Amino acid sequence: MSDSDLDVDLNLIERIREEITPHVVQTPLYRSTTLSEILDTDLHLKLENRQFTSSFKERGAVARLSALTAEERAKGVIAMSAGNHAQALAYHARRMGVNATIVMPRTTPVAKIDQTRYFQPEIVLHGSSFDETIEYVDERRIADDLTLIHPFDDTIVMAGQGSTGLEIVEQLPHVDTVVVPVGGGGLISGIGTAIKALKPSIRIVGVQSAHYCPVYAKLNNEPWKPERNQLSIAEGIAIKRPGKLTMPIVERVVDDMVTVTESSIETAMFRFLDIEKMLVEGAGAATLAAVAAHPDVAKGKTVCVVSGGNVDPAIVADIIQRTLVRTERIVRLHSTVQDVPGSLTKLTNDISDTDSNIVDIYHRRSFGSSTLDATVVEIIVQLRGEDDKVSLIRKLRELGHTVGEPDQILS
Amino acid sequence: MSDSDLDVDLNLIERIREEITPHVVQTPLYRSTTLSEILDTDLHLKLENRQFTSSFKERGAVARLSALTAEERAKGVIAMSAGNHAQALAYHARRMGVNATIVMPRTTPVAKIDQTRYFQPEIVLHGSSFDETIEYVDERRIADDLTLIHPFDDTIVMAGQGSTGLEIVEQLPHVDTVVVPVGGGGLISGIGTAIKALKPSIRIVGVQSAHYCPVYAKLNNEPWKPERNQLSIAEGIAIKRPGKLTMPIVERVVDDMVTVTESSIETAMFRFLDIEKMLVEGAGAATLAAVAAHPDVAKGKTVCVVSGGNVDPAIVADIIQRTLVRTERIVRLHSTVQDVPGSLTKLTNDISDTDSNIVDIYHRRSFGSSTLDATVVEIIVQLRGEDDKVSLIRKLRELGHTVGEPDQILS
Repeated sequence: MSDSDLDVDLNLIERIREEITPHVVQTPLYRSTTLSEILDTDLHLKLENRQFTSSFKERGAVARLSALTAEERAKGVIAMSAGNHAQALAYHARRMGVNATIVMPRTTPVAKIDQTRYFQPEIVLHGSSFDETIEYVDERRIADDLTLIHPFDDTIVMAGQGSTGLEIVEQLPHVDTVVVPVGGGGLISGIGTAIKALKPSIRIVGVQSAHYCPVYAKLNNEPWKPERNQLSIAEGIAIKRPGKLTMPIVERVVDDMVTVTESSIETAMFRFLDIEKMLVEGAGAATLAAVAAHPDVAKGKTVCVVSGGNVDPAIVADIIQRTLVRTERIVRLHSTVQDVPGSLTKLTNDISDTDSNIVDIYHRRSFGSSTLDATVVEIIVQLRGEDDKVSLIRKLRELGHTVGEPDQILS
Repeated sequence: MSDSDLDVDLNLIERIREEITPHVVQTPLYRSTTLSEILDTDLHLKLENRQFTSSFKERGAVARLSALTAEERAKGVIAMSAGNHAQALAYHARRMGVNATIVMPRTTPVAKIDQTRYFQPEIVLHGSSFDETIEYVDERRIADDLTLIHPFDDTIVMAGQGSTGLEIVEQLPHVDTVVVPVGGGGLISGIGTAIKALKPSIRIVGVQSAHYCPVYAKLNNEPWKPERNQLSIAEGIAIKRPGKLTMPIVERVVDDMVTVTESSIETAMFRFLDIEKMLVEGAGAATLAAVAAHPDVAKGKTVCVVSGGNVDPAIVADIIQRTLVRTERIVRLHSTVQDVPGSLTKLTNDISDTDSNIVDIYHRRSFGSSTLDATVVEIIVQLRGEDDKVSLIRKLRELGHTVGEPDQILS
C-alpha cells in the first residue's frame, strides 16, 4: 500500500506537516479591524498568498515531492496546470533537484506561462481542450515513466493542504468558523479533516463561484452543468469536476456550502487592495465575498482563508475600474451643448468647480445630435460617493446645462 | 525647555520608542528573493505600509500625542495634511481621546478625504493654495488654543520616526545600506540619527522624486525651484521646503542623495504589486526605484524603507496600464484594411492565431483612410514580451496584412 492509498486523517496531516515545515511559510493569521467593522463581524485572515509562489499549493506540492521514492525522483514528475499548482510544483521541484514537466493548454495567458517559466521547468503548451491536454499528459507520463502530481485528487496533497488547518487552530484557538474556497476540493478536505479531528464544533464553510459550483450543487442535491466557455475571475476554483477522492471527504467535513457572484468576488478583491493593501486573486477573495454576501456565513470568530495572490495586473486594472463604476465613484453623463466655441469649456469648468474629476470626454458631432447646432457630449466623471451623482447633476442643471440621467457604464 | 527643543539623539529615540511601542506595529523586514535576483543585489524590505493606517507617520504622531501635557490634550490638536500624517494623527488622536482638527486644501482628492474621515476628526477643507491653507491653520490654532502637530519639523516627531531605524538594525544586524524616501526629512533624520549612533559605517541613502528634489539640490549645491503645479506620483515626498529642524540633521546623517524619475517610481510600484503582491504608494516605492536606477545605491545588504501604502485605486489602475504599455506588453498597431465585409474579421482572426490578445479596436472610416475603399484600423494588443511585437508584425505581414510600425501610446 503506497502513501497515496492512505486515508487522510489527523495523523497523516501532522506527520506531513513536519516534513513540509522547513520548505513552506507558516503564513500569518490576523484580525482585520477595518473589514470586521465594515462587515460587522469578527473577521480574521489566513494569508496563504504570503507563500513564496503566492498560494497554498506549495504545501501539497512539497508533501507529494517529499513522498517520492528515489527512483521516482530520478525520473521526474509531470503535472497539468497553468496556475498555482504549476508554480508551486516547478519552484519546489527545482529546489529539490527533481525534473518537472508542466503541461498547459495552448490558450494559457502569457502572464501565467511566464510566472511558471521563471522556475525553469519543462513547459509544454498542448491541446486546445482539457481532454486534449490531459491526453498528452498521460502519453508523456507513460513514455518517460514520470510521476503524475495531481493538483488535488491525491491523499498526500490533501494532507499537505491540511497543514493550513493545524496552523489556523494554533494561531486562533477560539476560532468558530473557517471559510475555505472550493475548486477541486483539496484544500477544504485537508483543512476540514484537520480541524474536525481537533475540534468538531468549528464550522467549515466552503465557497464556490456561482459560475462553477459542482460541489455546492452536489451537496444540495441540485443538478449542475458547466456552461460552455464560462469564465470566472476566480479561475483557481473554476473547476468542472471535483476529485473522486476529495468529494467524499468534502461531504464528511463541510458544514455549509455557499456560492458567490463574479461581481461580489471583484468587490472583495478591490477591498483587499484598498483596505488591506494586498493583491488577492479571485479564488482567494471568494471567502471574503461569501462573508459579505451571506450574513449566516460568519458566526463568531471567523477565519477567511485567503488562498492565493496570483492575478494578472491587467485584470487588476480592469477590476479597479469596474468597481469604481459599480460603486458609482465613476459615472457617465450625457450633456447636450450648443455647437459654438466656448460651450464645452463652460461645461468642463462648471464640472471642475464641483470638485469632481473628469476622466474622459467624448465630443461626438456625428452621433446623437438632436439638432444641427447642438451636440451631445459624453463625460465620464469621478465622484466623491453615491450622493454626489445626484448633487452634481442638480448643480449642473441649475447652471443651465442640459444633462440626462446617468447610465450604467457596465452592461 | 520643552521636549520639542531637545536635540534628536539615540537616547531620545530609544526613550520614545518605548513609549510608542504599545501603539504601533513593529513592522516586518524580510529579504525579497525575487527582487534581489532581478536587481542583482541583496535586497530587504522594511514594510512601514503594514502600519494600521499604512504608513510610518503613526510613529511620529503617537510620539507627539504622548508628549502632550494634560492641558494640551484637553484642548486638542491641529494639523495640516491631506495624506498619511492626517490619517495617522486622526486615528491615534481618537484612540487616545484627543480632539483632532485636520485641515486640507480644498482641492484634496475625495479618496484621501474619505480615508481620514473614517477616523472621525474634524476635517476642514480650506484654501486653494498652500499659503491660504496654512494661514487658516494658524488662525484656528490661536483661536482655539490647539497644539499644532507638524508632520516632520518637530524633534519628537523625528525621534518617533527614528524608531524605524532601531528596528532595522535589530532585524538585520549586518545591514550595510539603508535607503529612505525624503520629503520633509523627518523619516531620514530619525532613522539616520539612530543608525549612525549605533553603527556609523551603515550607509544612509536618501531618495527624492526628480520633480521635487530640494534636499538633493541643497546637498549637491545645486539650485532648485519647484515648477508651478508640478505633480508627482510620490506625493508623500512631493514637498517644496524641507524642515528647518530636519535639514541640518539630514546634512549630518545622510551619505548620499539620489533622485528618481516618475516612470521609474511607477515601475517600482508595479513590481511591488506584481512580485510582492502588495500595494505601495509612490513615496514608498521610490527606494526600490532608486536601487533599480542607480547601481551604486545598493551596496551589500540593503534595506529599502517602504514608507507607505496609501494610493487611490484609480491611480493604481492607471499605473498598471501605463506600465504594460511602457514595457511593451501592450502595443498599438495600425493596419490598412480593404473596406469590404470580412476583412476586419480576417485581421482579428490572424491576430488571435498568434495567441496575442486584442484589448481594443478602433475602426475609423472618417479618418486616416488612404483611399476610398480602404480604412485604417487601430488595434491595441496585449503581447507576451518585447520580442513578440516584432514577430507579431512580421507574421501579420507574411499573411498579407498592411501593418505600420507600432508607435508609443504614451506621449
